[in-house]
Amino acid sequence: MRSIQEYQEIIVSELEKFTDSIKQTELYAPVKYVLGLGGKRMRPVLTLMGTDMFGGDLKHSYSSALGIEVFHNFTLLHDDIMDDAPLRRGQKTVHEKWNINSAILSGDVMFVQAFTLVTSCRTEYLRSVIDIFNVTAIEVCEGQQLDMEFETRDDVTLAEYLEMIKLKTSVLVGCALELGAVLADAPKEDARNLYDFGLNLGMAFQIMDDLLDVFGDANLFGKQVGGDIITNKKTYLLLKALEDANESQQLELKRWMSNNSHNSAEKVQAVTAIFEDLHVKEAASQLMDQYYDKAINALNRINVPVEKKEYFKGFADQLMQRTY
Amino acid sequence: MRSIQEYQEIIVSELEKFTDSIKQTELYAPVKYVLGLGGKRMRPVLTLMGTDMFGGDLKHSYSSALGIEVFHNFTLLHDDIMDDAPLRRGQKTVHEKWNINSAILSGDVMFVQAFTLVTSCRTEYLRSVIDIFNVTAIEVCEGQQLDMEFETRDDVTLAEYLEMIKLKTSVLVGCALELGAVLADAPKEDARNLYDFGLNLGMAFQIMDDLLDVFGDANLFGKQVGGDIITNKKTYLLLKALEDANESQQLELKRWMSNNSHNSAEKVQAVTAIFEDLHVKEAASQLMDQYYDKAINALNRINVPVEKKEYFKGFADQLMQRTY
Repeated sequence: MRSIQEYQEIIVSELEKFTDSIKQTELYAPVKYVLGLGGKRMRPVLTLMGTDMFGGDLKHSYSSALGIEVFHNFTLLHDDIMDDAPLRRGQKTVHEKWNINSAILSGDVMFVQAFTLVTSCRTEYLRSVIDIFNVTAIEVCEGQQLDMEFETRDDVTLAEYLEMIKLKTSVLVGCALELGAVLADAPKEDARNLYDFGLNLGMAFQIMDDLLDVFGDANLFGKQVGGDIITNKKTYLLLKALEDANESQQLELKRWMSNNSHNSAEKVQAVTAIFEDLHVKEAASQLMDQYYDKAINALNRINVPVEKKEYFKGFADQLMQRTY
Repeated sequence: MRSIQEYQEIIVSELEKFTDSIKQTELYAPVKYVLGLGGKRMRPVLTLMGTDMFGGDLKHSYSSALGIEVFHNFTLLHDDIMDDAPLRRGQKTVHEKWNINSAILSGDVMFVQAFTLVTSCRTEYLRSVIDIFNVTAIEVCEGQQLDMEFETRDDVTLAEYLEMIKLKTSVLVGCALELGAVLADAPKEDARNLYDFGLNLGMAFQIMDDLLDVFGDANLFGKQVGGDIITNKKTYLLLKALEDANESQQLELKRWMSNNSHNSAEKVQAVTAIFEDLHVKEAASQLMDQYYDKAINALNRINVPVEKKEYFKGFADQLMQRTY
């Protein structure tokens, strides 16, 4: 196994070769722009990690790994249109910098590029790779649909929320890892366990993200604390609070949510206080730990030397060790 | 070989099974709607024809054929957003019936469904199928981009126009046929010649479409004659006329195009008169015949019994025998 940074360097270098190879036409300008916005490139790194876990030749996984990154960025591009988001990684979104039509069509061509890259693997693994990737791509669309529906619904259950984050985010983490394993000729069951490791780690990470938004250290976290509260985002914390609240707490929560003219700081403070009364932080932490444990259990079931498992456990711990 | 109607019946029946299998959720409602709008299903029919030409088992081509149809309908769905089209086959477009976000996301999931169907072929042909389909899907996006750019450009050349219709329309005709051939284990060169047959027939058909809009018999054609002239659509005829016109004809054409308050009938009559003065009908017919000949030449190069070629030639003749 290599350091995460080494994997990242490989991906950055391969991604650069890929973007350099893209035609210089109007259709592809947004593609290059989006792929150039940076990011930690964690998904393709996971694919390389999956290949390394089973002693595969990393080079044979470069294309599929890039395909996962291009697919992820395609979903961001189209999601940003749907969410009418002005910024992505601090830069203008594509539909703002160009227009909606460019964002739709450049997204579409990126989607084909993603398929092309993902399937540019050794032919003996092609069927498995396609089957895993197609199912995941469908699920990611289904997750985005649920996320959009939730915005206008006020009866979203916790179970529905967990299903949404699973589909929208976690399945791609699992898929990235499993593809890497498949490309290293891993036994089917091991590859599936690695998928489950990723899926559950993704769930734990997403819940941690909800937690950090409210209870994180603003300095370490680098985002405004309470952003989700200000925008009434239906996070695990809010949904859990609404579920557990008594009548007066329900009313108070809904009062804070229904009126957008509140002083932001006051709103964050008041809603956080209700969260604390209802111990939603503890509930979220507990659920997060459950997903983390599931991830580690899946990891432990994989038939690889213990050092490999230690590496992945270390990675998971590092990922989850954000201060709050 | 079977009758075109028999192929159509197979496709309609298989498409129905597919749409019946789709989940009943908001995400998929537009997918079912679009696939239920009808149409001649010519592209998947071509795939079956390609398989039959080489004596393959039609059943093994059903999925890929459907994939081509789903892909085609996905492109219509997204194109309709970009063109802000209110109607498709006489019914509301998806972004009108639902909204733009639904149209984007349901289109995206349709795209994945198309990939899934196209790749649900026998694994021995998977690599070839994917390579052909991915290249075509990229080209179709590039064609739509050119088409959009042309709307706001007034310096589109004839060569650019031909490139656009090739990418946007003809390559998928070639791809549909070639996939059918590949799935019947056709020799690579034969499959490629069948692609060329489809590509050039597609070009001939597209130019005929431009011709019929101006010079077609309204009763037989079933559309308003001169619709392209009224909307200043950059067709082969208009671009050829602009290229061949003398200074005063240029000015007159541009005058008719710059002002949308003209009486439509008067505009159609005046522009048609310029077309006639410049013999663009004859030029278009000649080019159409050239593409048709190229198609037939490609067909003749294929190593199959003469009856098979006769069947495809009959199909081409029927396709091109629209009265004008």
